[in-house]
Amino acid sequence: MTNLTPALQQDLRSVAHELAEAARKATLQHFRTALDAENKETDRFDPVTVADRLSEERMREILARRRPQDGILGEEYGAKPSENGLTWVLDPIDGTRSYLAGTPTWGVLISVADETGPIYGLIDQPYVGERFEGGFGLAEMTGPHWNRPLKTRSARPLSECLLMSTFPEVGTAEEGAAFRKLVPQCRLTRYGTDCYAYALIAAGQIDLVVEAGLQPYDVQAPMAVIEAAGGIVTDWTGKRNPQGGRILAAANAQVHAAALAVLNS
Amino acid sequence: MTNLTPALQQDLRSVAHELAEAARKATLQHFRTALDAENKETDRFDPVTVADRLSEERMREILARRRPQDGILGEEYGAKPSENGLTWVLDPIDGTRSYLAGTPTWGVLISVADETGPIYGLIDQPYVGERFEGGFGLAEMTGPHWNRPLKTRSARPLSECLLMSTFPEVGTAEEGAAFRKLVPQCRLTRYGTDCYAYALIAAGQIDLVVEAGLQPYDVQAPMAVIEAAGGIVTDWTGKRNPQGGRILAAANAQVHAAALAVLNS
Repeated sequence: MTNLTPALQQDLRSVAHELAEAARKATLQHFRTALDAENKETDRFDPVTVADRLSEERMREILARRRPQDGILGEEYGAKPSENGLTWVLDPIDGTRSYLAGTPTWGVLISVADETGPIYGLIDQPYVGERFEGGFGLAEMTGPHWNRPLKTRSARPLSECLLMSTFPEVGTAEEGAAFRKLVPQCRLTRYGTDCYAYALIAAGQIDLVVEAGLQPYDVQAPMAVIEAAGGIVTDWTGKRNPQGGRILAAANAQVHAAALAVLNS
Repeated sequence: MTNLTPALQQDLRSVAHELAEAARKATLQHFRTALDAENKETDRFDPVTVADRLSEERMREILARRRPQDGILGEEYGAKPSENGLTWVLDPIDGTRSYLAGTPTWGVLISVADETGPIYGLIDQPYVGERFEGGFGLAEMTGPHWNRPLKTRSARPLSECLLMSTFPEVGTAEEGAAFRKLVPQCRLTRYGTDCYAYALIAAGQIDLVVEAGLQPYDVQAPMAVIEAAGGIVTDWTGKRNPQGGRILAAANAQVHAAALAVLNS
């Protein structure tokens, strides 16, 4: 991992929070405005697309000013090469379907990667006002009711584990079939949570998230936050893979190993 | 419907909000405390059960003081007969699995029924701090970012509709099969939202909710809120059924009719 001075770490954290504040403002500006759009008869107005782009634009403006030599990989506006080995990986709205439907389980994903993958990340839920942050030796959440350290759950049998995924189908037919082997082994499976599920692993609420077809910007911030809180995020071969694809996130190494064995059985 | 004076309506609203405040405090006291319980090695502590009971107890204490002649039907402590034709129907935590997992889509359901069924209701999400209220001529929401009137979406083809349900299975095999006929007809289907989905219909965000196996306390508050916002809630035969069972909630009569036809096709 790149050797970062405490001052540089502090600067990166400060920039990350500035990005998150800007993204909160941009995303909330258009959240649950479908009715307004409808009333104005502007049928072609798509609040998700508008908010997604505005959120990433605002973040890129801040990075251009505060961290001009860092690279950027964003969902909406692609890649800007890094001049110093550090790259910001941004998903301005993870969970656009949740955003469209009005549920408070979408989020803004912000992370910093070096050549090893993510070294710091945060998951922000603007509507609830929650932020889950991990890396540079810290793991903590802030929210409307309390600020707390993040710590994943301890090891337990799969039969006591809570599992989450965004869609019951979970990717391709083959991927869905592997996932459905895991479901009956677990105590409870819940759907529809997008990036919020990763935050719940970091917060010690659930044990497992299984997803497929992910992009780097979907997975890198959750990876940094969960690792900082004591968990583990890999692909379905057990390898730490910042590129995304098939993802297994777990509260601890024991639960991870048990779930991995079922997915590959 | 019972003829209620404006003063009585105002008193019932005032009591409902007092109940909701008490339930917020009771439910938040134990929300996301699994880790604390784990750290204390009190393995048998079940935060959901404790919060569910505490929430209903607090509400019943208020009703005993402020509305002693009204009946009560609560999930946890059963039925108290009404002496005046009015009954409070209470679900202290709707979505206990969401509560357990830490997602902010569970809620507290509070409603008032007369012999016709619910005439007033509210859906409260304590963690987000949102309240959706309908009946006695009003339909409105309060929340962390805005207070707004509630108004359901206008009619549109099923192919443009957003559909929600709590579980992909939706009750029995037969019920699930009917539901799965509706899924491909809609633009988007999301799971895992419990009572929050009804609030999203009332708020004009989504078009349809389909559920099965519901109890009176699951459905009466959502029914009052959605009806007040312009929507319609019936069973799968198209009948307004405050007893629960198989439920179809829709933003408007046209979407309701189209979805009902598919469920019964």
